[in-house]
Amino acid sequence: MAQSAPHTAVVTAAMLAIGDELLSGRTKDKNIGHLADVLTLAGIDLKEVRIVADEEDAIIEALNALRQRYDYVFTSGGIGPTHDDITADAISKAFGLACVHDAEAMRLLGEMYARREMEFTEARQRMARMPQGARHIANPVSTAPGFIVGNVYVMAGVPQVFQAMLDNVLPELRTGSRMLSRALACPFGEGDIGTPLAAIQKAHPSTSIGSYPKYDGMRFSTEIVVRARNEADLAAAASDVEQMILSLGESRPPPIFTAEA
Amino acid sequence: MAQSAPHTAVVTAAMLAIGDELLSGRTKDKNIGHLADVLTLAGIDLKEVRIVADEEDAIIEALNALRQRYDYVFTSGGIGPTHDDITADAISKAFGLACVHDAEAMRLLGEMYARREMEFTEARQRMARMPQGARHIANPVSTAPGFIVGNVYVMAGVPQVFQAMLDNVLPELRTGSRMLSRALACPFGEGDIGTPLAAIQKAHPSTSIGSYPKYDGMRFSTEIVVRARNEADLAAAASDVEQMILSLGESRPPPIFTAEA
Repeated sequence: MAQSAPHTAVVTAAMLAIGDELLSGRTKDKNIGHLADVLTLAGIDLKEVRIVADEEDAIIEALNALRQRYDYVFTSGGIGPTHDDITADAISKAFGLACVHDAEAMRLLGEMYARREMEFTEARQRMARMPQGARHIANPVSTAPGFIVGNVYVMAGVPQVFQAMLDNVLPELRTGSRMLSRALACPFGEGDIGTPLAAIQKAHPSTSIGSYPKYDGMRFSTEIVVRARNEADLAAAASDVEQMILSLGESRPPPIFTAEA
Repeated sequence: MAQSAPHTAVVTAAMLAIGDELLSGRTKDKNIGHLADVLTLAGIDLKEVRIVADEEDAIIEALNALRQRYDYVFTSGGIGPTHDDITADAISKAFGLACVHDAEAMRLLGEMYARREMEFTEARQRMARMPQGARHIANPVSTAPGFIVGNVYVMAGVPQVFQAMLDNVLPELRTGSRMLSRALACPFGEGDIGTPLAAIQKAHPSTSIGSYPKYDGMRFSTEIVVRARNEADLAAAASDVEQMILSLGESRPPPIFTAEA
């Protein structure tokens, strides 16, 4: 499936995290940051994330918006065996497909429970449900598969399972030219660098220069990140940023206390 | 501004987290979970979260969708002094308002920098920009204010500043009847409890029963959370869940290893 994309191609993705527990604060999401890391390394641009509740209408609406706009959509959560796990139903509806007990998933799960001498309950059988014709995403942690339908990758919410499933699908994804980046630690606050940094950004339009304020409880510093799709552009802009930091340091020592956000 | 809402009123909110660094994985968001905790405690239902890049069109589109749908929208990020801080401009455009250097914010920031004998640079003056007529959100950490326009609360991305700003606006928010919840630890995996738990949910339609699988690397257990807007409903459903866990424990000991997600 891995297509030989031209080196300059941009491949985009979105994430849809599903679960009441993320919105109530009971669970702190760990999958968004992990997906962001993995996709960035792979050369896929994560462009948008949405978190919605375990509500069919909310899932369908968000999914349909995202899958039409981006090359890939990755979902997390709601594919377990309990009544509040409605992701398979919602995604089937979004695609206008029947949600069925997949024969191969029934076999995998049935064998696993038989081996363990556990009952293959109706609830457990729910984990075999997916849109008719969906492909599996193997689950090496706990057997119950995720699934792929169209450009949508439906994965578990438990981080260990989400990560294992993502590892399994990554080799088949089309990837773009990887965004290169270089981070430069800057001991000055954003207020000191804002004007010269804007000039550097203007002089290097093929790069994207971000500045991220850090606050250690006493003072602000900045991490400046230069991003580009080729090394020459990256190096030229990063060099200008380094020069800016050096000349700011010459004009005065780093401030003991700078208060700005 | 705190209106005396009827006790059963539901007040809804959404969050819009803004920043390339959240989508590249460079920064792991800490504000979503914090906002979720604070709003849940206050009796405001966080219904949806979106994360978008520092791109004007993306911010405007997400903001307009969310502000029309929910009682409140809270944003984080993009209000600093550098060229990639475009939140004030995007929000002004979304409301059809001019983005201006607010006179009071200019005074606050000018005085702060004068006290510190630091230059009030053009970049720093960017932090005084907001939609014409917006109200301030005080920033006790680093002076530069957030702002309120319509039902949208625009706050900083640095967690310490975001949290301080949220503390400042919380007293003025209209709150609904607080969602009560009780969490019950369950030593069984979701496959064991799925069928009886669905029956309990059906018998208590005024409650919302969620089950959250936990995986410790060896076995799954479950946290069951019952939520309701009044104590009697909550207690009745929670009691049935406790009974279910007890009778599952009588029928057999908790499994040593259960593999399911």
